[in-house]
Amino acid sequence: MAKIAIDMMGSDLGCEELAKSVKQYLSESTDEILAFGAKSKLDKLFDGLDRITIVDAEDVIPMEIKPLDFLRRKDSSLYKALNSVKEKKADCIVTAGSTGGTIIGATFLLRNVPGVTRAGICAPFPTRVKGKACVILDIGANNVNTPEDLYTFAKLGRLYSQEVLKVSNPKTYLLSNGVEEGKGTDEIVQAYNLLRERNFPGFEGNCEARNVLDGNHDIIITSGFAGNVFLKATEGVASMMNQMIKDAFKHNIFTKIGYLFARSGFKQIKETMNYRKYGGSILLGINGVVVKAHGNSNAYAFYNAIKVAKNMVEADIVTKINEAFYVG
Amino acid sequence: MAKIAIDMMGSDLGCEELAKSVKQYLSESTDEILAFGAKSKLDKLFDGLDRITIVDAEDVIPMEIKPLDFLRRKDSSLYKALNSVKEKKADCIVTAGSTGGTIIGATFLLRNVPGVTRAGICAPFPTRVKGKACVILDIGANNVNTPEDLYTFAKLGRLYSQEVLKVSNPKTYLLSNGVEEGKGTDEIVQAYNLLRERNFPGFEGNCEARNVLDGNHDIIITSGFAGNVFLKATEGVASMMNQMIKDAFKHNIFTKIGYLFARSGFKQIKETMNYRKYGGSILLGINGVVVKAHGNSNAYAFYNAIKVAKNMVEADIVTKINEAFYVG
Repeated sequence: MAKIAIDMMGSDLGCEELAKSVKQYLSESTDEILAFGAKSKLDKLFDGLDRITIVDAEDVIPMEIKPLDFLRRKDSSLYKALNSVKEKKADCIVTAGSTGGTIIGATFLLRNVPGVTRAGICAPFPTRVKGKACVILDIGANNVNTPEDLYTFAKLGRLYSQEVLKVSNPKTYLLSNGVEEGKGTDEIVQAYNLLRERNFPGFEGNCEARNVLDGNHDIIITSGFAGNVFLKATEGVASMMNQMIKDAFKHNIFTKIGYLFARSGFKQIKETMNYRKYGGSILLGINGVVVKAHGNSNAYAFYNAIKVAKNMVEADIVTKINEAFYVG
Repeated sequence: MAKIAIDMMGSDLGCEELAKSVKQYLSESTDEILAFGAKSKLDKLFDGLDRITIVDAEDVIPMEIKPLDFLRRKDSSLYKALNSVKEKKADCIVTAGSTGGTIIGATFLLRNVPGVTRAGICAPFPTRVKGKACVILDIGANNVNTPEDLYTFAKLGRLYSQEVLKVSNPKTYLLSNGVEEGKGTDEIVQAYNLLRERNFPGFEGNCEARNVLDGNHDIIITSGFAGNVFLKATEGVASMMNQMIKDAFKHNIFTKIGYLFARSGFKQIKETMNYRKYGGSILLGINGVVVKAHGNSNAYAFYNAIKVAKNMVEADIVTKINEAFYVG
């Protein structure tokens, strides 16, 4: 049985939306929830439910916040929720709040696993192959990363792929501007050499951005800035094309009839491109399980984010990361 | 009347495919073509045509080539074609050959415009708004760029947008991982400050990768590595979704019937996402007009690349770049 800390206050859609996810999760599991947020609201939302403890925290961390400002806001829902993991009152935390605040708070309160040069934000992406995800990190915790950071990300990504996603022999690639050895920034070329010299298991070389989602790549390593460009470029084009598909079917009376016939085929696209089903991104390398759901997560997405956190707790990923980075 | 140098040898699809484009172009214009390639082949392809001069060049530059190796291959079609621009025998050059070779050759033979710290590869991207392109540079001539390089790209992109695409007040943005001032790598933050301090006309701040193609952005400035990730990520997702649309219509007999009704609506998607209509990317900042078509350009794409080169010659873009960077 896991104890799951939930920051109820960070969502763009309000705590009512997140409460739906929490209720569904409670009804399907035997886990306990610690819900951090305005007691006045949460009491009503969770009235009469078992296995849930409401911890009053009215203050909400804004989307953009500086480190010192975050650390002063000890009464905020995010601070308190992260702190409950530090104090071992919870096994993991899920938030749809500020990404910056989550990174600052997790780094300050939970700390990096010893030996981890930098923590990274990791997200599974849908690929062309049904049911197969590609794990990419870092997608935005950092800007520029050193070759050692990239090596750290490779270790973290491999552990996540193996222990949580249960991929037996994951293939790892560096995101670069060409597949040939020697392509990319100095950091990438040096990281390539490190991975080769140390015989990193399953390291297959560079991957260009156009091939990342073709289903042949399990793990993609990138510095935070380039990873963030990749993440948002794919989001932008996917949303543009989804809109174009809708417009195409609305074009005239014939295309509308066409939709009635074709919609079963298009369900698959919706299913594949549904980022919500992945629930959220994960802060890997931190001494604790931290899952960051998208700010506009609906109940379905946030429910999945809670499940991601639970899977990480069950896989005991933090212990395994500690063991992998332990140098004695 | 323009004189257009064509490297006939670099295409993945062979010189026969490019010959179709050249013939079409000749039939629709009064311009002259200098065709560089194996005379034995080209003589047959262009037999009996006016306004075309074949220059024998059997050697083909491979996709991956080092600077010194390129400079030794003076008999190659790409070297000779670039050199014809240097010697003022041609007004511009179009190639579907090696990107690396094109950059090396153009930089060595034609040189950067004085004052241009780095040349960049610039490409117009289709956007959500029909008929509106977003100009992005650099998409891969460089890896890391200095703040001054990024400032140079802003000047080059603005000139291209105004003089060639005839956009009257183009809006310029820096590609970053957040819209707020201060977001991004050190180079981006410093470039942001340079653009603000020098009151760069139409500079609107940062843009996240997800919004680049929404039709509100005329020019996006980025270092070469991140630009290359953006370019290839969009290509990858667009191709993945196109495949999914095809699969969706092939799903069963009903979806196939649906296709018959809906296909008119889907023409628009094909049209919008057709990168081929943009013909190719442009090496901006070089003292000469250099257009690089995709290696697998078909006759339609290569024909459009020739038109891009012609438009640049007509707009006298190189003179305007020289004037804009002239410091007296």
